[in-house]
Amino acid sequence: MKRIKIEVAYDGTNYHGWQVQPNAITVEEVINRELSELLKEEIKVIGASRTDAGVHALGNVAVFDTNTIIPPEKICYALNQKLPEDIRVQNSCQVADRFHPRHCDSRKIYEYYVSNREIELPTDKRYVYHYRRKLSLKKMREAAEYIIGTHNFKSFCSAKTQVEDTTRTIYNLEVEPKDYMVVFRVEGNGFLYNMVRIIVGTLLQVGVGALPVEQMESILEGQDRTKAGPSAPAHGLRLVKIKYE
Amino acid sequence: MKRIKIEVAYDGTNYHGWQVQPNAITVEEVINRELSELLKEEIKVIGASRTDAGVHALGNVAVFDTNTIIPPEKICYALNQKLPEDIRVQNSCQVADRFHPRHCDSRKIYEYYVSNREIELPTDKRYVYHYRRKLSLKKMREAAEYIIGTHNFKSFCSAKTQVEDTTRTIYNLEVEPKDYMVVFRVEGNGFLYNMVRIIVGTLLQVGVGALPVEQMESILEGQDRTKAGPSAPAHGLRLVKIKYE
Repeated sequence: MKRIKIEVAYDGTNYHGWQVQPNAITVEEVINRELSELLKEEIKVIGASRTDAGVHALGNVAVFDTNTIIPPEKICYALNQKLPEDIRVQNSCQVADRFHPRHCDSRKIYEYYVSNREIELPTDKRYVYHYRRKLSLKKMREAAEYIIGTHNFKSFCSAKTQVEDTTRTIYNLEVEPKDYMVVFRVEGNGFLYNMVRIIVGTLLQVGVGALPVEQMESILEGQDRTKAGPSAPAHGLRLVKIKYE
Repeated sequence: MKRIKIEVAYDGTNYHGWQVQPNAITVEEVINRELSELLKEEIKVIGASRTDAGVHALGNVAVFDTNTIIPPEKICYALNQKLPEDIRVQNSCQVADRFHPRHCDSRKIYEYYVSNREIELPTDKRYVYHYRRKLSLKKMREAAEYIIGTHNFKSFCSAKTQVEDTTRTIYNLEVEPKDYMVVFRVEGNGFLYNMVRIIVGTLLQVGVGALPVEQMESILEGQDRTKAGPSAPAHGLRLVKIKYE
């Protein structure tokens, strides 16, 4: 029996997120089904990040245990033959038996793309949130400074969450222009439910002047979801990478 | 009666190109239909660039004549209300009655995106051509130098073409890395049928070493389609901009 780690990229448009749930198709479910068929064992992967419905990934991580004789590095190729085109395993390798993708120390990097132009480009529609109103890069960057560090992010977490400890560390939050777009790139040791989307939704409010920059402090301190901005839509978000120590 | 110019962006995935044709849906046809309905006149636009099936556009250009009282700059907003989401008119304005989008001097800019990595990212699938084999940027740039200038591009033109004069001027052809991608950006005074795709297909052959750099000269001189490389697939190509004097 060996433990295999896979790095998984997907277009989230047609999935109800990562995690298996009744009555809706998810990425995890498709991978479990195709892995089980490929390896002729019942496989249930353990995923690192439970991305929301419609969120994309370039490098989500999952592990599973298997007795297969297929060499670990070859599993990704065999699996990709069976997976639909909107899911592609980027690589596969053997890891230590005790490696757990959620319990090991890691850093996750997400990016959120905003198209800040008058009329949307159709080629952006699936992956970029169209937001017409004029944004101040300077204000959004100042507001981003409040987010960086170790904080209780309860205000930036869907009220639906069941997590008890809402403290997380954000190592970096860049707000970068890219042609007519603004790219938010955030790196942290973990993220609460909807956290990146609420951070972006709040920074956009700051960017248009609807929230003063300094209010970021009281939003964080308030530990109340209703104080932060709205959640930005799922399709602009992508999980870029999970880095393990 | 006034002449209106529109700049049109579209995701070409679901269209059989720009130009109206029997038994297949095209971008021009959809625009003609919705414009005619909007303006309550029969409208037939004249397009600048007849993009192929599956090719995308950020800024194709078309003109039409109308008696409407809708202010020229507002037509794009009214039209976008009726168009499907994969077509978006970026702007509209009145132009001189004699302005013709194909007969006036112009420069067209196309970009071609190649994903040069082992396994494709699903989020690239619609807009980026996945090409696994290792590419030499240096060789492709050297080969690109042969393309720049005024040449007879008959070798870089689909044999199906009916055009008589196959001489065109290429002002610039950049081959730029962008993360794991290579972006080909070409600017010229006009392009033959499939010309950008054949140029890219040929440069890729040079990039993997299947064609020597110096052979570009004899390919051009041969004036024979069979001497150039294959046509790269449509979905990696986008018409970025048409600039008029």
